[in-house]
Amino acid sequence: MPDKSRVEVCFSPEEFDLYKQEYTTVVAIDVLRATSAICTAFENGAAKMIPVSSVKEAQAFKDEGYLVGAERNGKIVDGFDFGNSPYSYMGDLVKGKTLVLTTTNGTKAINRAAKTHEVLVGSLLNLQSVIDYLSQSPTDVLLLASGWQGKFNLEDSICAGAIAEALLETGNYMSDEDSTIASLFLYRQATDNYFSFLKASSHRRRLRNLNLNEDIKYCLTPNQTRVIPVYRDGALVKMEGWV
Amino acid sequence: MPDKSRVEVCFSPEEFDLYKQEYTTVVAIDVLRATSAICTAFENGAAKMIPVSSVKEAQAFKDEGYLVGAERNGKIVDGFDFGNSPYSYMGDLVKGKTLVLTTTNGTKAINRAAKTHEVLVGSLLNLQSVIDYLSQSPTDVLLLASGWQGKFNLEDSICAGAIAEALLETGNYMSDEDSTIASLFLYRQATDNYFSFLKASSHRRRLRNLNLNEDIKYCLTPNQTRVIPVYRDGALVKMEGWV
Repeated sequence: MPDKSRVEVCFSPEEFDLYKQEYTTVVAIDVLRATSAICTAFENGAAKMIPVSSVKEAQAFKDEGYLVGAERNGKIVDGFDFGNSPYSYMGDLVKGKTLVLTTTNGTKAINRAAKTHEVLVGSLLNLQSVIDYLSQSPTDVLLLASGWQGKFNLEDSICAGAIAEALLETGNYMSDEDSTIASLFLYRQATDNYFSFLKASSHRRRLRNLNLNEDIKYCLTPNQTRVIPVYRDGALVKMEGWV
Repeated sequence: MPDKSRVEVCFSPEEFDLYKQEYTTVVAIDVLRATSAICTAFENGAAKMIPVSSVKEAQAFKDEGYLVGAERNGKIVDGFDFGNSPYSYMGDLVKGKTLVLTTTNGTKAINRAAKTHEVLVGSLLNLQSVIDYLSQSPTDVLLLASGWQGKFNLEDSICAGAIAEALLETGNYMSDEDSTIASLFLYRQATDNYFSFLKASSHRRRLRNLNLNEDIKYCLTPNQTRVIPVYRDGALVKMEGWV
């Protein structure tokens, strides 16, 4: 019997260093809203997305003429083309373009993991596609929730729990960490209605206060795209040969 | 209407800095087994316990003639009087004594919080007593899980969820963090049978492998004591005037 691959959940980029040693692949997850926006951009034909960690780096790209999204604390940073609303990344605007993005949590998680690991971008939007890919190509995979300013958040952990559950069901994966067990429990509680389950979540309340309910509904509706963004040579691109 | 006090859960000492600003009191929780051992020692008449973070500090106390417990990775460190099994802290051995303790996770959490906050020691053993005390004296309280080597663990989060649920039910507390919501969910799943719920937990498996099933059963049996250890001037003592 071949050894099983390992799938675990890390609740926050702050804890990434405690987990990272044993994995080859990281799935970065920021359901509300960075990784949902990234999946949406590629579904709408974006060529490339460069995730940057600071507004200063984003400004440098903007000065060179790039289309740049910049979000902090749920809002578009003044002077940039868009924030991290998925609705900004639809239609002809992004088609064929190289975009640049910086967000409060998600792009930091991606950049942190990309230094040392193969990075895929996951969200509820491409949930089944990520599950299918990792089911077909088992590897030791860490599901990295972006959290909120370093803290645990519910929606990312539930998305991670959904991926972990499906991979464990294949029989080709095992898990060992309590964070993974907790994610599975939370996912099973939430599975019938993410939107209702998350009504109490702090991030959802934060975004609702910003009149972002449409964004939230969209981001919590699974399986709207098959694209899997992957990090290659400093930028995210659509995974080749995968639909 | 007076403002409500706040109760939240922090999953690990690694995240403490992200949470600590807004609280006056921290309840340090290390169910398996440091805070359970500490509660047991005071129930059995210990006068004082000095929590130290390193084996080196513990050795210095040992050299001065103190009774010293030292545990790393579930085992007694060679040359010390005991580890963190609660059964070592029962009976006449500890009565009236000043003990010294260093453990993998729990004493670190206590010392980290004690620099800036009032620190109480919580476990399932003194669960209802901690709830009663915080119900009678509402304060902004952070329930600090010790975790396992910096990572999330189930048993501490469930104990924290039990405390949070009871405090929220008083109507004098509110909570806001997703980590607290998750702890409440996990606690409600576990509430009828901690032992069964935790059978999958990584820490429990770790200890079972060390033949510590009796310790686990004891630590997971709520409300065996009313003592609340508190940190005062460099050492834990039994809270005065509270039974």
